[in-house]
Amino acid sequence: MTENHEKQTDRIPEPTLRRLPWYLSCAQLMKAQGELYVSSTQMSRQTNIDASQIAKDLSYVSIAGRTRVGYEVDRLLQVLEDFLGFAALHRAFLFGVGSLGGALLRDSGLQQFGLKIVGAFDVNPRLVGTCINDIPIYHSDEFERQMQLDPVPIGVLTVPIRLSQSVADLLVAEGIKAIWNFTPIRIRVPEHIVVQNTSLYAHLAVMFNRLKE
Amino acid sequence: MTENHEKQTDRIPEPTLRRLPWYLSCAQLMKAQGELYVSSTQMSRQTNIDASQIAKDLSYVSIAGRTRVGYEVDRLLQVLEDFLGFAALHRAFLFGVGSLGGALLRDSGLQQFGLKIVGAFDVNPRLVGTCINDIPIYHSDEFERQMQLDPVPIGVLTVPIRLSQSVADLLVAEGIKAIWNFTPIRIRVPEHIVVQNTSLYAHLAVMFNRLKE
Repeated sequence: MTENHEKQTDRIPEPTLRRLPWYLSCAQLMKAQGELYVSSTQMSRQTNIDASQIAKDLSYVSIAGRTRVGYEVDRLLQVLEDFLGFAALHRAFLFGVGSLGGALLRDSGLQQFGLKIVGAFDVNPRLVGTCINDIPIYHSDEFERQMQLDPVPIGVLTVPIRLSQSVADLLVAEGIKAIWNFTPIRIRVPEHIVVQNTSLYAHLAVMFNRLKE
Repeated sequence: MTENHEKQTDRIPEPTLRRLPWYLSCAQLMKAQGELYVSSTQMSRQTNIDASQIAKDLSYVSIAGRTRVGYEVDRLLQVLEDFLGFAALHRAFLFGVGSLGGALLRDSGLQQFGLKIVGAFDVNPRLVGTCINDIPIYHSDEFERQMQLDPVPIGVLTVPIRLSQSVADLLVAEGIKAIWNFTPIRIRVPEHIVVQNTSLYAHLAVMFNRLKE
């Protein structure tokens, strides 16, 4: 028990954090099949991850498996959704309503995983004043005022690469705490700012390269 | 010289491959600023990656830097775009035109990075027979026939999680060589099939977790 509590205060390793959504998906599939319990062996079969690794990963969240039967599916779902932050709603602004930015505004799936984009910014006069998926698009000049009216913690960065750094600087200056960076630029930010890089293009490059082999 | 050739036949490490798009972006920015040369020191300042690491990474692509001046910007651009596969057009089908699938069809940015989605599949009667961004949406039953008419190497997987594995099996059976998996499921495929996992939700989880700290 004490050990379990100590574990929770540890910083969870990123590889573990990245695997947890796989276990959540397993639990969702088991629930859809009407199962009440899921064992690490079953999850291992589905994810190709060692059962011992799964047990170790799940020791970071407050759930205990029961010998022979495994984890209670409902409890596992709830604990993982809470732990991963999918159960809460994290508000965000999006910067740069180009092709990818517009696509993300239209992806209402993000909201099911805890991210609610409440506004977007661009300078394109054809976009400013319109809405995509009910999300208003403001002129970039209005960002400061919007942050005063309604500060949000997260900025989604989908601007052209020549603007990545300057827009990132602006977000930090106005109090954004985390940047989800979709641009293929390594942005520089103060240490207390969280940056999550998601470069679809880097993933494409890896896939194309492996495909050539 | 010989050493350089040997390097090229090595399998490039994935971390290197993932960093190369950052150097490409650097080169694009330098070009936009009218620069003819870029040094690894300049790239290091922009990417926060050690200059020695950059030089090592670039030794995998066939470009040599010149002492003092660095790399020729135009040549670096061309070599990296070729190497990363962004200069060629890789054709793909997309499976599952839900929220995320629809968003990806609308992201014409992918085409600039070498991925051309030429068709999509779904079972929703309101979607089948329509187009998004000029990309036709077929009924899933037509996949086999479409692959016979016009085989493509890549499948983009954006189906609901309960279908991830069965659709992946179908893609492999029909001759798809690489799967870009956006579902939060670890799909099981034969060894010769390339799988690139891009779970936006796993990235969200990492960001939310770091934000809590």
